[in-house]
Amino acid sequence: MTLTTSHRATAAAAAPVLPSSGALRPLGIEEVAITGGFWGARQRVNRRATLAHIGTWLEREGWIRNFELAVAGGLPEGRRGREFSDSEVYKYLEALAWEIGRAPDDELERVFRDVVSVVGAAQEPDGYLNTRFGRPGQGPRWSDLEWGHELYCLGHLFQAAVARARTKPGADDGLLEIATRAADLVCEVFGEDGIPSMCGHAEIETGLVELGRVTGEPRYIAQAKLFVDRHGTGVLADIEFGRSYFQDDIPIREADVLRGHAVRANYLSSGALDVAVETADGELSSALVRQWDNTVARRTYITGGQGAHHQDEAFGADFELPPDRAYSETCAGIASVQFSWRLLLERGEAKYADLIERTLYNVVATSPSSAGTAFYYANTLHQRTPGEVADPDAPSARAESSLRAPWFEVSCCPPNVARTLASLAAYVATVDEEGLQIHQYAPATISTTVAGHDVALHVETDYPAAGDIRVTVDAAADAEWTLSLRVPSWAVGAALEVRSADGGVQTLAAEPGYATVRRAFSAGDVVTLRLPVAPRLTRPDARIDAIRGAVAVERGPEVLALESVDLPAGIGVDVVAIDPDAPLREEDGRVVARLAIRRPVDLPWPFGDPEVADDEQIVDVPLIPYHEWAERGPSTMRIWIPERRAGA
Amino acid sequence: MTLTTSHRATAAAAAPVLPSSGALRPLGIEEVAITGGFWGARQRVNRRATLAHIGTWLEREGWIRNFELAVAGGLPEGRRGREFSDSEVYKYLEALAWEIGRAPDDELERVFRDVVSVVGAAQEPDGYLNTRFGRPGQGPRWSDLEWGHELYCLGHLFQAAVARARTKPGADDGLLEIATRAADLVCEVFGEDGIPSMCGHAEIETGLVELGRVTGEPRYIAQAKLFVDRHGTGVLADIEFGRSYFQDDIPIREADVLRGHAVRANYLSSGALDVAVETADGELSSALVRQWDNTVARRTYITGGQGAHHQDEAFGADFELPPDRAYSETCAGIASVQFSWRLLLERGEAKYADLIERTLYNVVATSPSSAGTAFYYANTLHQRTPGEVADPDAPSARAESSLRAPWFEVSCCPPNVARTLASLAAYVATVDEEGLQIHQYAPATISTTVAGHDVALHVETDYPAAGDIRVTVDAAADAEWTLSLRVPSWAVGAALEVRSADGGVQTLAAEPGYATVRRAFSAGDVVTLRLPVAPRLTRPDARIDAIRGAVAVERGPEVLALESVDLPAGIGVDVVAIDPDAPLREEDGRVVARLAIRRPVDLPWPFGDPEVADDEQIVDVPLIPYHEWAERGPSTMRIWIPERRAGA
Repeated sequence: MTLTTSHRATAAAAAPVLPSSGALRPLGIEEVAITGGFWGARQRVNRRATLAHIGTWLEREGWIRNFELAVAGGLPEGRRGREFSDSEVYKYLEALAWEIGRAPDDELERVFRDVVSVVGAAQEPDGYLNTRFGRPGQGPRWSDLEWGHELYCLGHLFQAAVARARTKPGADDGLLEIATRAADLVCEVFGEDGIPSMCGHAEIETGLVELGRVTGEPRYIAQAKLFVDRHGTGVLADIEFGRSYFQDDIPIREADVLRGHAVRANYLSSGALDVAVETADGELSSALVRQWDNTVARRTYITGGQGAHHQDEAFGADFELPPDRAYSETCAGIASVQFSWRLLLERGEAKYADLIERTLYNVVATSPSSAGTAFYYANTLHQRTPGEVADPDAPSARAESSLRAPWFEVSCCPPNVARTLASLAAYVATVDEEGLQIHQYAPATISTTVAGHDVALHVETDYPAAGDIRVTVDAAADAEWTLSLRVPSWAVGAALEVRSADGGVQTLAAEPGYATVRRAFSAGDVVTLRLPVAPRLTRPDARIDAIRGAVAVERGPEVLALESVDLPAGIGVDVVAIDPDAPLREEDGRVVARLAIRRPVDLPWPFGDPEVADDEQIVDVPLIPYHEWAERGPSTMRIWIPERRAGA
Repeated sequence: MTLTTSHRATAAAAAPVLPSSGALRPLGIEEVAITGGFWGARQRVNRRATLAHIGTWLEREGWIRNFELAVAGGLPEGRRGREFSDSEVYKYLEALAWEIGRAPDDELERVFRDVVSVVGAAQEPDGYLNTRFGRPGQGPRWSDLEWGHELYCLGHLFQAAVARARTKPGADDGLLEIATRAADLVCEVFGEDGIPSMCGHAEIETGLVELGRVTGEPRYIAQAKLFVDRHGTGVLADIEFGRSYFQDDIPIREADVLRGHAVRANYLSSGALDVAVETADGELSSALVRQWDNTVARRTYITGGQGAHHQDEAFGADFELPPDRAYSETCAGIASVQFSWRLLLERGEAKYADLIERTLYNVVATSPSSAGTAFYYANTLHQRTPGEVADPDAPSARAESSLRAPWFEVSCCPPNVARTLASLAAYVATVDEEGLQIHQYAPATISTTVAGHDVALHVETDYPAAGDIRVTVDAAADAEWTLSLRVPSWAVGAALEVRSADGGVQTLAAEPGYATVRRAFSAGDVVTLRLPVAPRLTRPDARIDAIRGAVAVERGPEVLALESVDLPAGIGVDVVAIDPDAPLREEDGRVVARLAIRRPVDLPWPFGDPEVADDEQIVDVPLIPYHEWAERGPSTMRIWIPERRAGA
């Protein structure tokens, strides 16, 4: 089913996105806490290891020091890092703000204030803030809108300020003032009568809308609308990759599908939907829905990853989804979650939460190592040659086949993962006038207000290891309301069991969409959703040429992968085939597949009518969740496994 | 069979490569003339249209004028073009030299001398010649060996000078002197006691050896050896693409396969083999044979194209050969022909001539339009969306899906095609002490000396339209000698008919390799090779994932393609399947395939167990030679066609 009732937001919540209207109202991290499980463990690693790791590398690479140099007159000579390095500092601030909001900590608070103070000191009297432009010896302000990233950096500054304002309203650190001074300057410089252009990397659009929501300043939202509407009018220069690279090829209301740089495309879509919601622009919203639909149907990897091209980090054509050259940038996955989340809040349709779940498990969770101190920038679906161990002491130049690296010369992904994990509880549940919806499953506590009544729940689950999600009502309104639990599209055969505090039990079939229970709940009532998480074989659309004749194995929301370390010694993932008729087993918490090793005959020319040797060996091999791969040293890996066919 | 006898070169020939020893001695364009047919037509277009086209664009883009500005003190302000634009002028000179050598022409000679004079005036007193470095306001000489291309440009200058010296020995234009002055400087600056580095783009290695062969100057060959041996020792900086990009990752004697930038890799291999031959370095030669073998077996497209990556124009991993992201740069195809030709001369094995033929028909012939005034830079094997018509008045920024463009911001390919077509007759035939070998088939006259005796032949053929190649002896030595005709590896079932002037006829089976006739030929003897050119289905090695479950159709040396303009209106190449059991017909000179149109059902998510609709329609569609595609407006195209399977 689709959730179609609407709300008008009343309370401010500590959530990353707070639309003023929409089908669903997000709950903030003061209302939802993840208490354990898959995501709880990742939040702990993020707080305990990743944040310090990021801080260390930001210092080490000089990206925080750039702000200090700006004050001390040490720019441009001493400046280090790429043109967008300021933005990594802002994403770090945002991650810190969410973490402090989740659980206050003196040390985190001190670090946060120190960095804000360094950043603020570098702001110029008129509000301009960027360490790369505008000083003697540097390019003039706004002189390179295609590649300069000045407005992009400010967008991340605004998001950090918004996160802080929502998690610690009234804090005296000054970040919100820094942001509004910069936003005021942007409105002055790029307004109706200003420079009629925009940034080559979208991001400021959503930042401005959110800052407008926090401050109540309508100019920020008007400015975001101007930026959104300038896309596709050819205001930026044509470049080698074409104007589609920065979505300046087609007006956003006319486009049918996302194209160009995948991070830019999703950030722009997020900002455009924010504008559509705040300006009640149904045409714009519908255009974005259409683009989301076509992008998901034709340009998205099974992992939820987006962006097929290495060259320009861009979407390919429809059905151009090569697994071995999947770019699937971590940041594109995060940006896609942001776009889908906004659509979910506006429309209330389960498909948006489905893609969020898929992307969280298979892109966002894949990037960081289990220790939280190394990251994938690109997330290939097929590793042909064993990757090299990254230098722990040097930023990666983004070598394609390396294992996870501690840092990158372009290091957008680590702080983006950190801010996402830190705020993840805000993506778990929403409310509308009828009730409460749970979209993502994790052990959690939820405490909010439904139609004026206080409601408290807790969720227990081993998901995704197991498929049962048990929701216990701890405090309930003395009135009817609806509890909605998302049933993922793959969960055919799901069931909902409602066990009343008084002992009555009712079991219902639960179709993909939202399974709902409407009643006057009592404390002690338990609703259990049973999702079938047995492993399943998945085949691709016939138009995805690159994976024709191959199957993937999925289990619940997780895409599984075959890693060579699980194969007999000396066998790579290039010589195996799977019998699609052989059952998949589960053993010791692992899915085990039966594979044939069928080594092709090496010929001097690989085209003709090559023979394939008969099965050399039949082996039972564990498949692992894709997000766990590359934790055991250099290996080859594939998600799509060729089908073994008679005679082929 | 393999031709194993060797020669010591005695006479200078007007040929692009003149090794001092090897299995075969090349014949120059004064000994072999292509008189018509497929390649004769292309040589005419090249002479009549392409050369003037290139000259016009070189003027228009300012790349010749850069040399004039150098003299007039107008650099660096007025300089236009990329850092390697000088090299396009040199390749143009080389093409002109071959054309003048093929058939003298006052206008071509005037143009040639004018350009040489402009170039020569820009040379500095010590021999340095480059319009991009070394003057006030420019980077110092040799200050950017990774990307500066100074030595690369000089390599092309040397090849132009060599072509001129061989086609017009003793000409007083001064080009050879310009080249030797520059080469002397290179030996001084980069010699044993000089800068211990090399150029990021190989090319000067083969240029130096060839200049050494022409001038007899051993220092040039010694310098080439130094450059070859410095590869793989990490003398260049590490870059985003890794040192493999410019073959500075592994010493050339230790490498097993070509890797990195495909043009660089093949030019380097060519130069290294030149060094190996001149220094009798069997270890180096064997290493190159091994690399050629592995590259052809695992990293080469069915077209002969090389280079799978757009991002770094580089080879992918073994079996990473995506048709829809094939880069297959025209220049990489030409460079591969140069490498294979040198191995053929050294080793006399038919496999090298096989790859040359495949690459000439399917890469080199694909790049230029039939009119000779537009070119492909990259040669994709699968076009998913109709390309855009290129602007006839602006150089292309190398848009990926454009139709052929008149010129490029990086315009290495057009003049490279021009010099290759102009010198093509030199790749047709060779001699050794036992006789004469014909490697490539075209209507031609051949007149040379075999073991001290004058021999004259002419070749008549409609190849590749028809498979008969008729060789008539016009003048023969009064001694036994061997005529060898290459039988391509695909030509299983070929036959050789020997018809004596006196009426006797003998027919022999001809196995792939070389079919030979040894006798004391008489004038009027006719040897006819009958190659079976019926269309054939070709399947890929199972490890080439991107084309699993698809077949290609080949006919003789030509790879065929399906272009959407030949399908019913509104049908693209994404929804067709071929029945591999249905016979391929030939009709009006076209191969006709029977295809099923099977439109997949559009689903909101393309992974699961998607249905494919039943055959909507069975259509008979002509396939075209790949090199003819994109001559009829925007279209989609594919070489690899999915197989229609029961239930799939």
